[in-house]
Amino acid sequence: MSDQTQSGTPSTPTTVTVGQYLATRLVQLGADHVFGLPGDFNLALLDQMVTVDGFHWVGSTNELNAAYAADGYARIRRGIGALVTTFGVGELSAINGVAGSFSEDVPVVQITGMPSTSARANGLHLHHTLVDGDYDHFFRAYREVTASATIVRLQTATRDIDAALMTAISESKPVYLGIPADVAIAPVHAANLRTPLVAASSDRGELERFTEALAAVVAQHERVTMLVGPQVHRKSLEPVVRQIADHDGVYLASQNMAKAILDESHPASLGTYMGAFTRVDAARDAVDSAPVLVLAGTVMSDFLTGFFTQKFDEDAAVELGLTTARIADTTFYGVRLEDSLRALHAVLGRTGRASVTPVGHPDVAVAATPEPGVALDHAYFWAAIQGWLRPGTTVIADAGTSFYGALDLVLPDESDLLGQPVWSAIGYTIPATLGASIASPQKRSVLFVGDGAAQLTIQELATVLHRGHTPVIFLLNNDGYTVERKIQSPHAVYQDITPWDWTLVPAAFGARDLVVTASARTQEELVEALAVAHASENKAVLIEVVLPELDSPRLLTVLTDAIAAAAAHASAGA
Amino acid sequence: MSDQTQSGTPSTPTTVTVGQYLATRLVQLGADHVFGLPGDFNLALLDQMVTVDGFHWVGSTNELNAAYAADGYARIRRGIGALVTTFGVGELSAINGVAGSFSEDVPVVQITGMPSTSARANGLHLHHTLVDGDYDHFFRAYREVTASATIVRLQTATRDIDAALMTAISESKPVYLGIPADVAIAPVHAANLRTPLVAASSDRGELERFTEALAAVVAQHERVTMLVGPQVHRKSLEPVVRQIADHDGVYLASQNMAKAILDESHPASLGTYMGAFTRVDAARDAVDSAPVLVLAGTVMSDFLTGFFTQKFDEDAAVELGLTTARIADTTFYGVRLEDSLRALHAVLGRTGRASVTPVGHPDVAVAATPEPGVALDHAYFWAAIQGWLRPGTTVIADAGTSFYGALDLVLPDESDLLGQPVWSAIGYTIPATLGASIASPQKRSVLFVGDGAAQLTIQELATVLHRGHTPVIFLLNNDGYTVERKIQSPHAVYQDITPWDWTLVPAAFGARDLVVTASARTQEELVEALAVAHASENKAVLIEVVLPELDSPRLLTVLTDAIAAAAAHASAGA
Repeated sequence: MSDQTQSGTPSTPTTVTVGQYLATRLVQLGADHVFGLPGDFNLALLDQMVTVDGFHWVGSTNELNAAYAADGYARIRRGIGALVTTFGVGELSAINGVAGSFSEDVPVVQITGMPSTSARANGLHLHHTLVDGDYDHFFRAYREVTASATIVRLQTATRDIDAALMTAISESKPVYLGIPADVAIAPVHAANLRTPLVAASSDRGELERFTEALAAVVAQHERVTMLVGPQVHRKSLEPVVRQIADHDGVYLASQNMAKAILDESHPASLGTYMGAFTRVDAARDAVDSAPVLVLAGTVMSDFLTGFFTQKFDEDAAVELGLTTARIADTTFYGVRLEDSLRALHAVLGRTGRASVTPVGHPDVAVAATPEPGVALDHAYFWAAIQGWLRPGTTVIADAGTSFYGALDLVLPDESDLLGQPVWSAIGYTIPATLGASIASPQKRSVLFVGDGAAQLTIQELATVLHRGHTPVIFLLNNDGYTVERKIQSPHAVYQDITPWDWTLVPAAFGARDLVVTASARTQEELVEALAVAHASENKAVLIEVVLPELDSPRLLTVLTDAIAAAAAHASAGA
Repeated sequence: MSDQTQSGTPSTPTTVTVGQYLATRLVQLGADHVFGLPGDFNLALLDQMVTVDGFHWVGSTNELNAAYAADGYARIRRGIGALVTTFGVGELSAINGVAGSFSEDVPVVQITGMPSTSARANGLHLHHTLVDGDYDHFFRAYREVTASATIVRLQTATRDIDAALMTAISESKPVYLGIPADVAIAPVHAANLRTPLVAASSDRGELERFTEALAAVVAQHERVTMLVGPQVHRKSLEPVVRQIADHDGVYLASQNMAKAILDESHPASLGTYMGAFTRVDAARDAVDSAPVLVLAGTVMSDFLTGFFTQKFDEDAAVELGLTTARIADTTFYGVRLEDSLRALHAVLGRTGRASVTPVGHPDVAVAATPEPGVALDHAYFWAAIQGWLRPGTTVIADAGTSFYGALDLVLPDESDLLGQPVWSAIGYTIPATLGASIASPQKRSVLFVGDGAAQLTIQELATVLHRGHTPVIFLLNNDGYTVERKIQSPHAVYQDITPWDWTLVPAAFGARDLVVTASARTQEELVEALAVAHASENKAVLIEVVLPELDSPRLLTVLTDAIAAAAAHASAGA
């Protein structure tokens, strides 16, 4: 809120409409592409939003897909994502996507165009309502899956909007804004817009006390092990983490959604830690038996901890969370992840330590020369992908076989991994590919998605293609819900899906000329298709990869055995 | 609950699992086809349900579509529809469909397979949760859109299930059942299953008092006008309504979702009443100025009342609701629609009246002989459809141009009209066609759906085709969201969709041999395609109908003018 900022934009109009105010705020926060669909209760709002410089509309094929796309956009941008839906029918279709954003700490703004304030006050029996006079059912549903839910009132419109956006950027969680049609077009003062919103800062006093206590803990030990989780990506703190890893005496392991954070050849790297499912014993021990363990932006959920098989004492650890830090039993409120990580970096710089002994890493898979006529399996497929991936890729992997295959890859430099290990909604990744491609057009997206998952959200592929994005899409066709088959009742009727002719899908979506398609059943066909993909950088590429119904990547095989055992245990009432 | 019923099934086992109990109840209530998707928290439940005789699983491509399909099934069956989803990701994807069922009085049972009771009690940080230990967020979201929401407990499982199903069938509203994995496989007494559930009955005393009061009102007048709404269909009361219409001295108008209830050539018929938008003035007056107006199963929402332009005095009318009846200012609680209608029939039979003078009806549209090379428009299209429709058809029309085109049709005998004039979620009808085709396989489904709407839920077409259903699908391709264009900002960027090659979609879905496709841009091509559709009774038929971007059917034109005016009024803060 410096004078410079205020005087730097003398041309700001004195009033704007609420819709323009909101769109301007979104653009300021980096959400310059907004996803969604029109509906008669959001047309007034959209007509205001589209007038704002720098605002771009991305029409989606349905609202769930819009929410997934906004989430993917926010993850790759390390910032805000936003979608606009209509009342009732639109917003409820999106709620699963927004819940996923909550589950995985992604700041998505769900904006609902609502009937007018007076219609709501009078309980008019409009369409898109439950015809019971209560317009707040959907708002209340959203309260369950957002950090803040607000129906914007005329008198407090700019305050309501700013408060919601501050919550989103400060807590890295989704928020809900309902904008009645009359409020959307109402004029408000534009003065606040001169000062872009900035996330809340740490409490200075608490941060000082934390830094002192951290220094005391760190000084006592020759070695510090850090376990890094996905929240580090949300706040764009990868560079700080890498600086910390460069200090002597530091080991760094990552949770599976943070695997790309440090080159695995770095001497500090312990690779991916997943409790008992950690591949290298020495790496697992370096976490489980660390003299000082720092948990940085971690999430302790089943899929991230190898089904709770971690052996370290979480209560004794140093935990750097998004908005609080903790050292053993002392919590420092208001100490934010960006500051606690920087404090750790500073503290480690104060005293010298011996360098750590690098732990071994599993061999990188290498695909053998293809044997003529040999059918593909997961082992060959992922080994071939390992050799094919290039630096600067956004790797996107759907829940199930795709995600666990991708987790065992060693990612090339400058790459991102997009997936949903906590929420784990199948179908998330096709719309997320749209969001990622818009958020980071300079990186090619490489998507791995199973046939069952792809059927949930396939229509968003049309948007990806018609917008001219050029992802490489590996459609893993294994005749059904293989991840569920691996858990229980592999041949049950409910595991089946209808068999599609995947390579015809782009043509049906009117995008035949925008995409290169191939189908690979054998090792040779895959190798050929991979070459075509690299050679077709200016087009999208869709490769159907035909895999055995009950085959799965290494990691999924060991994990689904564990899920099946846990399910059996849970079903027994444990 | 007669002895005969109990003794009729001596072979019932003494215990079943909770999953089997639930599936048996569903089959007893006519929901013998259940829709949904598997997920790791519902596999235990599904494995129990599929063991029950008469239970059929219909795998859907996503959960929203499963909810729409269950809703369509319930409407056509005049009974229960059901779907099974997994926790979090699955159930939240379905919630918009279930809210639509609430809005339109459709008894759908949303069944969620949940993590075990102990996982929930301990707040385990499992995937598909918000990682905050609270497993009840989604259940609470469902409380907003269902008549009852229950997480089933081991101790009370059969009681919980029966209570929820009783609510669904008695109130004609959706209900939510969360079944933890351990509860799904727990054994319970099967004894209750000998007695199928029956909807609650009217309160006898109230019904007697109502009948007496009704007789007094009716006796005073020579003429009774009845306005019939969609709730009549939910309770399968069309025959009683037709009997009432056969009495002398009765006029019968229908709301738009009840248009098929009485042959428009019947002397009592006033056609469709929509307030100021009623086509025949004499018909509108016969409702607005009725000496005794009986509202039977009506819904007084914007789209059903011509935007609240009805002129009759609702407070002075006789209102027969689903569970209560009212005569002017006296309400009779617990008098159910089936009984209040029968009471009206009986009362009308007691005294003779003069027959009414039939009002005129608008001419039935007739398509002219096609002119060579003349492009299609809505006027020609719907006139041609009028001449082509056969008796015994399930007409299904999506919100927007399709629905309002279909409303102006005179439906042939033995036909049903499926649409969503209250909830009005675009995309509803493709999955609803799946549900309708399963519910009533002897009737051919004829679907009208716009291109924008179809993109939301297109994947369910794969399920329709691979199951061998033979609907005729008219895909109205008009380059975007025409209904929204008609309301506001016709050329705004958000009105556009991506252009698909619709006739290739079935091939992409692996169903090329199961469908006949055609594309009609001219009158001649349409007439030819219609002939092919009748000649292809054993296959599905997909006809792309290319229409001008800003053309619309007669009724939509007059209505969107009114919506636009109302929106402008509302936006002005009125």
